[in-house]
Order: sequence, then structure tokens, then C-alpha cells
Amino acid sequence: MYKRIDHIGIAVRSITDALKVYRDGLGLTLVRVEVVADQCTRVAILAVGESRIELLEATAEDSPIGKFIAKRGEGLHHICFQVTNLVEEIARLKAAGLRLIDEAPRCGAEGRLVAFLHPSTAAGVLVELSQVSAQATNSSE
Amino acid sequence: MYKRIDHIGIAVRSITDALKVYRDGLGLTLVRVEVVADQCTRVAILAVGESRIELLEATAEDSPIGKFIAKRGEGLHHICFQVTNLVEEIARLKAAGLRLIDEAPRCGAEGRLVAFLHPSTAAGVLVELSQVSAQATNSSE
Repeated sequence: MYKRIDHIGIAVRSITDALKVYRDGLGLTLVRVEVVADQCTRVAILAVGESRIELLEATAEDSPIGKFIAKRGEGLHHICFQVTNLVEEIARLKAAGLRLIDEAPRCGAEGRLVAFLHPSTAAGVLVELSQVSAQATNSSE
Repeated sequence: MYKRIDHIGIAVRSITDALKVYRDGLGLTLVRVEVVADQCTRVAILAVGESRIELLEATAEDSPIGKFIAKRGEGLHHICFQVTNLVEEIARLKAAGLRLIDEAPRCGAEGRLVAFLHPSTAAGVLVELSQVSAQATNSSE
């Protein structure tokens, strides 16, 4: 069910500064920079193997990333696994007793469907699940 | 130079409890559990795509993982990239002005060579670099 690590999200104060490390220093390839307006977040996406690194910069202090940095400083924020059918996976995880932030898929960047597990259910880790194609959610209908 | 995310390290209080989530809940495949004696750490390795998840449990309170959990609680601890030639990569990163914890490769699990960058140089993230085969370090000799 879990095909790969889709991406690792890193909360950063400044994408400009973080790119000096992750792109210019480590040499990862910058795919693009985009704004996720409803999360008040600017995202720089870098490619590595079958996965990506997402540098997450708050565009407002009371955004999720802004609050995270105010509380914990910069650093690893979440991990995202790619799944094939998010509706089925949410149902499976709920039946297994895991605590979800999203009990139904919601729209993420790039037309993806996403859902988050609560960190309290996953050893303190904010876990995101992502499905590339929305069509697959209806595969069992 | 960076071929893939080798693994994500997650600091956990109890591997037994964390496996209930990551193996039994999410369904990741447990590869094995091993002890890294010099780090006072027990490690459960789970496979996902070309990468792994490492659940890290302290076997002593004053170990790196023990101190991390005492300070920050459970959660994402570090990210490791696989490199082809660690000696060359360390030299390249030093020349680029990045701060390294290890200025020469040291031995990690499974006969690997590893080196860590300091979190202060990488937006608060503890970054590990890992080379699978030790022989490659001598490729330029």
C-alpha cells in the first residue's frame, strides 16, 4: 500500500537561505517554488531519487509552519507516504484504531488528495498520506 | 551525487509500541531489529520504496536518542542521504562552507561509512550522509 516516501517536509525560516544549503550545498535539484495559499506557506520542492524534499516557509506567523517554528524552531516537520487509494487507506487506518486529523481526503498541492495522521498516534511524527490521482479513489465504485 | 533518501530516523520511546503503528498499522515491512552498541541504540528497520524508516530506541538515558527524547519528545530525528563517495562529498561540503560534525567518514551499521552535518548548517535538520560500500572511498586513489 505504501509505495514510497513521497516527500519530507522541512520547516524553514527562509527558503532563500535554505536553498543555499539544500540546492547549492548538497546539490539537490530544485523542481519549483510554489505558494499554498490556504496554508499560508511557500514551498520549494527539490528532487532526490523517487522522493522530494519540501522546504516550507510561512507567509504568516499564525500559519501551521509559523507556529511550528515559533515553538520548536526550524527542522523536520512531517513525512509523506504515497498511497494508491486514500479513501480505502483512511478506512483501514481508522479500523486499526489510529487517530487521523483528516477522516476524509482533502485537496493538496498539484491536484493530489491528502490526509494527515495525528502525531500522537505515530510516535510524535506528523504523517501525511498522499494519492497522486484523484480518480483512483473511485476505483472501487 | 545524492542518489536517494537512504532512511529517515525517528526517535521513539518504545520500538514495541512504534511497531504497532508503523508495521501493524501503516503496514510497512520490518526488515530487522539490531543494536548499535556504541550509540546505545536499538534500531528497527522498515522498508518503503527505495528508502527505509529507522525507529530508534535508546538503551541508555544519556545516549543521543535518550537525550533527544528527554528534550524534545518522540519524533523525526534525522534524514540520511545515500552518496557514492563520502570522502569526496565531505571535502566538497567543507569547501562550500557547510559545518560538519564528522570531518572524516566513520563506521556505521552494516559496514557503511557515515558522516553527519550539523543541524545549524541545514535549517535545523540533522543530516546524515551514507556510503554503502567502503571500497568506493578509494576509487580516486
